[in-house]
Amino acid sequence: MNDIAVTRRSRITPEREAELYRAVLDLLREVGYDAVTMDAVAARTRSSKATLYRQWGGKAELVVKALRSQKPGGIADIDTGSLRGDLHAIIGREDDCAMERNAALMRALAMAVHMNDDLRQAFKELLVEPEIEEFRRVVQRAVDRGEVRPDNPALEYTTHMLVGAFATRTLIDDLPPTRAFLTSYIDAVVLPALGAPLH
Amino acid sequence: MNDIAVTRRSRITPEREAELYRAVLDLLREVGYDAVTMDAVAARTRSSKATLYRQWGGKAELVVKALRSQKPGGIADIDTGSLRGDLHAIIGREDDCAMERNAALMRALAMAVHMNDDLRQAFKELLVEPEIEEFRRVVQRAVDRGEVRPDNPALEYTTHMLVGAFATRTLIDDLPPTRAFLTSYIDAVVLPALGAPLH
Repeated sequence: MNDIAVTRRSRITPEREAELYRAVLDLLREVGYDAVTMDAVAARTRSSKATLYRQWGGKAELVVKALRSQKPGGIADIDTGSLRGDLHAIIGREDDCAMERNAALMRALAMAVHMNDDLRQAFKELLVEPEIEEFRRVVQRAVDRGEVRPDNPALEYTTHMLVGAFATRTLIDDLPPTRAFLTSYIDAVVLPALGAPLH
Repeated sequence: MNDIAVTRRSRITPEREAELYRAVLDLLREVGYDAVTMDAVAARTRSSKATLYRQWGGKAELVVKALRSQKPGGIADIDTGSLRGDLHAIIGREDDCAMERNAALMRALAMAVHMNDDLRQAFKELLVEPEIEEFRRVVQRAVDRGEVRPDNPALEYTTHMLVGAFATRTLIDDLPPTRAFLTSYIDAVVLPALGAPLH
């Protein structure tokens, strides 16, 4: 983090930041990305547009950081000693309600992400790439432990498998993604594709 | 097909039907699902709204049938003698340009599908379920040939794997889904998860 970022950060409290993110997510759910404006966020949160722009630079960054604030952290702290244990623990960080709320937000944003270059860029840098990097560390440990062969061709598709299951559950089965579903998918698809132990 | 459907069908020629579908898809790309109206379709295609309603019942059915008209058919004709051959042949029906055009249309519709119950219903009945059924037949033949064990837990996730790869390619890699990518994904993920032969 550079000096400018630190200066920007220091202007509002973490409580106020959380309150702003909640308001942005409420607006997103109510009207969708295109209709969320900095004016609407300022009005809803009784803040000045100047503050919002100073703190977040623009709507895309504000929306993605609001989304990121909802995601459970802590993948970096998970280290159960097996790939299956790690993946189950990652899924277990969120309860089913939180998971479905996040899935609904992601669905609501899917079109906007593909229509708006700045949103797609922020989405990629602030959400997708850090997530891929975290999964990569988990899988690399499995390779280092000898659970997965380093030349297994499914290694580069770990994120596609997991995100794909999450993304297609509602479309295909008309059911929300749940921990039970994702856990079962990990055991049936992800671990066998990687040739990793199922226990 | 019942008598009423036959009567409705007979009112326009296949050429005219194809022309109407192209106009609907153009409108979808230009303005998105919410802004496509039966008025706009009628104006663009110089047809009467009464004809459109008589033929398709409503916007959701018209849009989904327009999408369906773009999909390559012929899964039912594919029977290469192995699961790998069948899945590669299914991917090979479409060139990369057509695949990316379809992917872009699906992304543009993702939000609308989740916001509109009638569109989701039409999507499910006219596109998702027939596709799942076709995949099921292909995989069932592999089970019958002894390529896949009938109790393999990945069997119920075949569609999630394939559709998930298609849906996440752009989000995760910022690249369009291509035949080369999907073929590689089938060999790295789908066949190993199903325990099916890789040759």
